[in-house]
Amino acid sequence: MPKLKDLIDELVTANRILANEGIVDSFGHVSVRHPARKDRYLLSRARAPERIEAADIMEFTLEGDPIDTKKAKQFPPYTERFIHGAIYELRPDVQSVVHNHSPSTIPFGITDHKLKPLLHMCASIGHDVPLWDSHDKFGDTALLVNTMAMGRDLAKKLGKGRTALMRGHGAVVAGNSIRHVVFICNYLELNAKLQMQSMAMGKIKYLYPGEVDAVIARTGPYTLNRAWENWARRAGRPMKEMA
Amino acid sequence: MPKLKDLIDELVTANRILANEGIVDSFGHVSVRHPARKDRYLLSRARAPERIEAADIMEFTLEGDPIDTKKAKQFPPYTERFIHGAIYELRPDVQSVVHNHSPSTIPFGITDHKLKPLLHMCASIGHDVPLWDSHDKFGDTALLVNTMAMGRDLAKKLGKGRTALMRGHGAVVAGNSIRHVVFICNYLELNAKLQMQSMAMGKIKYLYPGEVDAVIARTGPYTLNRAWENWARRAGRPMKEMA
Amino acid sequence: MPKLKDLIDELVTANRILANEGIVDSFGHVSVRHPARKDRYLLSRARAPERIEAADIMEFTLEGDPIDTKKAKQFPPYTERFIHGAIYELRPDVQSVVHNHSPSTIPFGITDHKLKPLLHMCASIGHDVPLWDSHDKFGDTALLVNTMAMGRDLAKKLGKGRTALMRGHGAVVAGNSIRHVVFICNYLELNAKLQMQSMAMGKIKYLYPGEVDAVIARTGPYTLNRAWENWARRAGRPMKEMA
Amino acid sequence: MPKLKDLIDELVTANRILANEGIVDSFGHVSVRHPARKDRYLLSRARAPERIEAADIMEFTLEGDPIDTKKAKQFPPYTERFIHGAIYELRPDVQSVVHNHSPSTIPFGITDHKLKPLLHMCASIGHDVPLWDSHDKFGDTALLVNTMAMGRDLAKKLGKGRTALMRGHGAVVAGNSIRHVVFICNYLELNAKLQMQSMAMGKIKYLYPGEVDAVIARTGPYTLNRAWENWARRAGRPMKEMA
Repeated sequence: MPKLKDLIDELVTANRILANEGIVDSFGHVSVRHPARKDRYLLSRARAPERIEAADIMEFTLEGDPIDTKKAKQFPPYTERFIHGAIYELRPDVQSVVHNHSPSTIPFGITDHKLKPLLHMCASIGHDVPLWDSHDKFGDTALLVNTMAMGRDLAKKLGKGRTALMRGHGAVVAGNSIRHVVFICNYLELNAKLQMQSMAMGKIKYLYPGEVDAVIARTGPYTLNRAWENWARRAGRPMKEMA
Repeated sequence: MPKLKDLIDELVTANRILANEGIVDSFGHVSVRHPARKDRYLLSRARAPERIEAADIMEFTLEGDPIDTKKAKQFPPYTERFIHGAIYELRPDVQSVVHNHSPSTIPFGITDHKLKPLLHMCASIGHDVPLWDSHDKFGDTALLVNTMAMGRDLAKKLGKGRTALMRGHGAVVAGNSIRHVVFICNYLELNAKLQMQSMAMGKIKYLYPGEVDAVIARTGPYTLNRAWENWARRAGRPMKEMA
Repeated sequence: MPKLKDLIDELVTANRILANEGIVDSFGHVSVRHPARKDRYLLSRARAPERIEAADIMEFTLEGDPIDTKKAKQFPPYTERFIHGAIYELRPDVQSVVHNHSPSTIPFGITDHKLKPLLHMCASIGHDVPLWDSHDKFGDTALLVNTMAMGRDLAKKLGKGRTALMRGHGAVVAGNSIRHVVFICNYLELNAKLQMQSMAMGKIKYLYPGEVDAVIARTGPYTLNRAWENWARRAGRPMKEMA
Repeated sequence: MPKLKDLIDELVTANRILANEGIVDSFGHVSVRHPARKDRYLLSRARAPERIEAADIMEFTLEGDPIDTKKAKQFPPYTERFIHGAIYELRPDVQSVVHNHSPSTIPFGITDHKLKPLLHMCASIGHDVPLWDSHDKFGDTALLVNTMAMGRDLAKKLGKGRTALMRGHGAVVAGNSIRHVVFICNYLELNAKLQMQSMAMGKIKYLYPGEVDAVIARTGPYTLNRAWENWARRAGRPMKEMA
């Protein structure tokens, strides 16, 4: 079990990487399940990912209540933190969650086209990417997932997968470590970009289902750490050995 | 009421952000209504936004006459400052105005497609974005809004909205603070880019009108300041607490 | 008449700007007519524009012969310098010439679509942009303009204009000063990019011919210097007062 | 024959250039044949190209066995090193090999469109670019070329050419020096990007076959070194005289 301090450090690096690689802009967030308490998670106060420091990270119950209520009063948490808790609640296997507005994924959330993996590096997004529309159940809202009810509905759409799109809003990514979700986020964006370009050219030969399974089966520390070291340094953060 | 010095500082930061985020190139400008005199506004001398310093900011009457005529002789003002005065004149609610050549909006000004919000962050552009064509009333010109007559005609097209396109030229954005117009500008560009990509894929599911209203209703300092801090630091400027 | 040293400095800055703005990559070049001898021009030795220093600039006759033959032996000149001499020979009004591989212009050289100005800033490219195909007269070559015969054929296609495309190769731009050609280059690239995007959306409303003339008539130092100051500083070069 | 130390230095620079120009991300690799032993090649341990140092370079037999087995245990080699050995084995003329996931080439590997040279700088990719599909012979795999059998099958598809695409995966490039393969990689990416844009506009006039031959015939140190100096410096590496 990693030390809490190291995990927080890793979470800060994740925020910086996602900003530096263009996956999040001033909004979007990444969390990690608390290593000692499965019913809590760690997430920054409401702040742009590119600016986040270790001191910004706070602890929340799965219902989204801050443990340090005094600090939460001074530094308001993200309105949409319920996304994280609802996914951790439904999915004991998930250790880290990202919500973003990854630009190339947006067109797939508002047109009739399914995102599907077409590049081996992108198989980690899963066999397909379901689409959640907040309007179906919740009607005219500001599209923000600001209640556990909305979070749970979104988590249900994610199901057993790793990725889901949100119509007119963005995406969620769930994985088994911080490095894992950052990896999936980067290749979800790339797959979306390449799929848009390929669709304009004609019929696409997507990965075979057996290929998707084979790639997922062998995506481990050897792969994740190589990318993490590179992205972390590009974002001005040192590489730590933790995986 | 903010101190004049702080407001000028905020205006300089706005120029740097718009340049750094690719919303303006060597041209385009942002102004703010004078906090103490509703019949005046503050705007830089004619200079690329990326280069503007506090000393470049000048004061103008709504008709576009510089208060410091001696300085204006040495440092000529923008030819198109009439855009700003005409909007402040028609719209007492407006406190800040931007004119830009935001690249992704240009195709919407010269083809038969309306820009419409498709992403929650972009609802701030308004329900739709009207198009002003200088040729309709003014015929063959250099397309520059260099008279109050042209400025007023453009302001009328903007109407009660926050955004309007100018055929073969660019866009105007009006809002209730400097941070507000910078926010709208960044998401107007993003909406235009995503709409072009989505149009190539098929029929688009735009935001529901009720969603647009809901997002606009809740876009306040919590949202604007988070983005501003991030953009300001990216542009090498410190975050100030002013909103 | 500017001092030779200042003009060389301006030429170095032009090279750096064109590289920094993505108009040239490791190839492409910009020249200026010699201020004292109308039958000569100044051009760098063969080197990537981003790397050029004042010491790299050499003097050539319009036929492309280096004045300093000893230096030319040590530092070979550009193979395609004949483009520059042939244009200066045919066009006494031209003071500066650029040859580039401006990326967005390439598709217009190899498909059946004419580049035409659609944005006021881009009117400087002229009413239309003719296309020169080296194959028409010279057959299978490496497409390089490495003789005066090829240079003159290209210059004839340019005619009285400011811009011409070269099929499968790039573009030439001619103007009345270094700042002028750099300005035209940047907005030729932008026009090409926006035209590609707009073509994908539908029928384009180009600038009216009278608008093109009106913009060209008023594009002088007020406009060119504002852009030049900005581009020069972005490229790490100081702004000089010379125009 | 270059000194081994200089060649290793050149190989490090190649890695940095390919990363800096966006040809490789955290994956992909470039090798060079050992100058003294034609049956060996030099390649980094498994690491992101942007991070590689001289100490990371290792020596391998053509079958992919590391010479320094102790070092290989501590620093695992690339899983796909077999690509390199198989090409060196089949092609005695080849001195350097790159495997990458060059983004714009991916759509050509998964749709029914052949990459073909359309710009003179891009003639080096060859008259056409064959496509290898690992599924044809090897079925459902993780698409990685992790055996000599797969490497040899891919090398056969490359044939006598310089470039081949790999369906849902990337590309290989083979050339007669490190600078040569880096040059081809950069212009393969550019050609793919321009071809996608041009295809959206209509029928493309590709280079004439005789033009392709003429360009290839004259692409030597004069051209390669100019680009190399520029790319090396951009990537923060000094230019060395070696070619």
